[in-house]
Amino acid sequence: MSTETTPIEAWASLTDVEKKTTFRLLPRSEAEEIFLNLSSHDQYELLNDLVPLELRSWVRLLAPDDTADLIQEFQPEVRPQLLSLLDEVARKEVIALLAYAEDDAGGLMSSRFIRLRPDMSVDEAIRYIRVQARTPVEMIYYAYVIDSTQRLEGVVSFRELLLSPPNKLVREIMETELTTIPEDMDQEEVSKRISNIDLMALPVVDAEGHMKGIVTVDDVVDVVKEEATEDIQKMGGQQALDKPYLRMGYTQMVKKRAGWLIILFFGQMLTATAMGFFENELELAITLALFIPLIISSGGNSGSQTSSLIIRAMALGEVTLRDWWRVLGRELGLGLTLGLMLGAIGFLRIWLWPGAEANYGEHYMLIGGAVATSLVGVVMWGVIAGAMLPFALRRAGFDPASASAPFVATLVDVAGVVIYFTSASLFLSGTLLK
Amino acid sequence: MSTETTPIEAWASLTDVEKKTTFRLLPRSEAEEIFLNLSSHDQYELLNDLVPLELRSWVRLLAPDDTADLIQEFQPEVRPQLLSLLDEVARKEVIALLAYAEDDAGGLMSSRFIRLRPDMSVDEAIRYIRVQARTPVEMIYYAYVIDSTQRLEGVVSFRELLLSPPNKLVREIMETELTTIPEDMDQEEVSKRISNIDLMALPVVDAEGHMKGIVTVDDVVDVVKEEATEDIQKMGGQQALDKPYLRMGYTQMVKKRAGWLIILFFGQMLTATAMGFFENELELAITLALFIPLIISSGGNSGSQTSSLIIRAMALGEVTLRDWWRVLGRELGLGLTLGLMLGAIGFLRIWLWPGAEANYGEHYMLIGGAVATSLVGVVMWGVIAGAMLPFALRRAGFDPASASAPFVATLVDVAGVVIYFTSASLFLSGTLLK
Repeated sequence: MSTETTPIEAWASLTDVEKKTTFRLLPRSEAEEIFLNLSSHDQYELLNDLVPLELRSWVRLLAPDDTADLIQEFQPEVRPQLLSLLDEVARKEVIALLAYAEDDAGGLMSSRFIRLRPDMSVDEAIRYIRVQARTPVEMIYYAYVIDSTQRLEGVVSFRELLLSPPNKLVREIMETELTTIPEDMDQEEVSKRISNIDLMALPVVDAEGHMKGIVTVDDVVDVVKEEATEDIQKMGGQQALDKPYLRMGYTQMVKKRAGWLIILFFGQMLTATAMGFFENELELAITLALFIPLIISSGGNSGSQTSSLIIRAMALGEVTLRDWWRVLGRELGLGLTLGLMLGAIGFLRIWLWPGAEANYGEHYMLIGGAVATSLVGVVMWGVIAGAMLPFALRRAGFDPASASAPFVATLVDVAGVVIYFTSASLFLSGTLLK
Repeated sequence: MSTETTPIEAWASLTDVEKKTTFRLLPRSEAEEIFLNLSSHDQYELLNDLVPLELRSWVRLLAPDDTADLIQEFQPEVRPQLLSLLDEVARKEVIALLAYAEDDAGGLMSSRFIRLRPDMSVDEAIRYIRVQARTPVEMIYYAYVIDSTQRLEGVVSFRELLLSPPNKLVREIMETELTTIPEDMDQEEVSKRISNIDLMALPVVDAEGHMKGIVTVDDVVDVVKEEATEDIQKMGGQQALDKPYLRMGYTQMVKKRAGWLIILFFGQMLTATAMGFFENELELAITLALFIPLIISSGGNSGSQTSSLIIRAMALGEVTLRDWWRVLGRELGLGLTLGLMLGAIGFLRIWLWPGAEANYGEHYMLIGGAVATSLVGVVMWGVIAGAMLPFALRRAGFDPASASAPFVATLVDVAGVVIYFTSASLFLSGTLLK
């Protein structure tokens, strides 16, 4: 009875071609079970070459919110045809749902929930729920109490209904202190609100308090995943993809990635400009060039550690804009500690290297000093840039996740070149640098 | 009725000190509502300086799984004292839950679920559920049908119970094709299984099929968030934190970050070694040094784009180990396109720069050619390393998320130096390089 892999997991391991074939060969009941558990895009892949008559039975299987998601996968010109496959009631609901932006609470909600009137008795309510449960409803755990103008008055849990005397009124047992979701709330906010509260569903209302639908916690799981995916992709230094990796077309992929790569490339060109100013020093002490990648990358690495911590802490609401000075204080201390560690290792690397004098010249101890000092400076600059860039971006109204590792590294590289050659001038003037 | 911010959201905006004060001042019922919605760690913060007598009423508010989580926040030596505050029944349940590792299905589950016997009639079952609903149960949406040896036989949804004739047996209406969760399944697998399936809860069973508890979809939201946080932090090139950013102590933070930073630093030292081999070339054509940061960073940037895409696609199950060659194929094409773009920009930058000849010498066109060619090579190497490293790590049994942007960049930097100087030798031998 307990299975090692579920049918859905087995299905997921098939290739696209195998899926299409298997789907046609499976008995209807098994095919339905798999179909209902697929994402809208996967459903689309299975259906997109069926004729309308075959399509109808599949589309009618779905709840209105899932139908709306599926229809959005199709090209705009075939959508009216799909809507015409639905029955009258479902078509109206789906059209209403299609009107919401996909990222709003309205786009996430289901309009099939259990309704009660405040002046029903508990006994009447239970019988009324029984009737409603015959048509698909998203959630039978809470019933929503609505007045004659569709305004939400309260919520009753099923447990309360079962435990209350049959002749009490719904009005007397309902909870009226409600947490609701405005219909235009962004889905990221919706998911924060639901996961902060120990309820399986929250009601969505418009500005006048009219009940529009419910958002359930299982819809939120998908949102939480989606938002994390977007952040991770942005933090890699690119635009977030809107499809799974293997489904992105070649041109789309180039578009999502080339933009940031080119911007960062222009930023990096400043390193060449900065180094141009120090060409004299380089010519006098060519050994200095050997440590450039080591130094600037250490700054980039410490910066990308910090920015990934801060971006995630912001997304989870652990750190808010007004915490910037606390973060700065911590990171300054940390940067100093980490910088001293790397500086010490760098100095030892040059000092103790077999044949240090032959490789780096008679002033190798001074070069070691310059490298170590630059490392402290560059790591500190890295953590400051990595910590403050997400705050600056959010303050300016951008997504903090755009403070990607490559973005921070580019900022730090240019500064790193300047820090390195400045400290080299201090250590080596009068010896290597005349 | 509909509020802009919920009490929980208002609470979250207070500082730690304000929270402690407010908590003591709030009326008991409001304090309880907030307390029940807090994470275990936040509950601990509020309780840790209370005397046992005050503690008792708060600890007894919680369901057993939440009590177990809270007790784990306290030092091991005070835990027995906390257990002694519970009543007999709750204590047994909590001790059983404490035996599971926090990251297992067992550590995630609740042992308070609705039980039925297979030979009850529908009518008896509804009455029996009513009795059970008087004590806290996690979920009243499904009832689990268990035989006399605690073996799970089936599941009945509440809707089915309500729609079936009162004298039918539970055995006749229960669903016996069950998706279950083994008690030692890792929480990441559990969250994948639940979010793949459209159910609000799944039963947890041991190897003999005995029912141990249920995992509900709202527990999974937290797991999904936690796993994304861990991945994001690892992808920043460090160990994942086990606490929110602002709660990590200074020493802990240094430990989590210094390790990788030092490992990467040792890796980066290879750039200095690699460049040592080309010191001759550098001395002859000092201009070459100017473009080193630009070239190696472009490789790092394209690599970190790719690795963040692949790591996330793996975490979501969109890409599996056997897709490696498909990924490699795509990325080779993409790397060539992106590399040609950056190469063209790099060549134009050198060719069209005002005073190019004065800055870069008479052979500036050849230098441009060397830079452009290296960019194509380095970007291609970057995307290959970024794409294949997560596969290699997973194959070897490590977390693919360790293929952080800094890790990939370090790999690419060393290769970048070699690629650059090799292509420079080809372009400039006979002119700048004799």
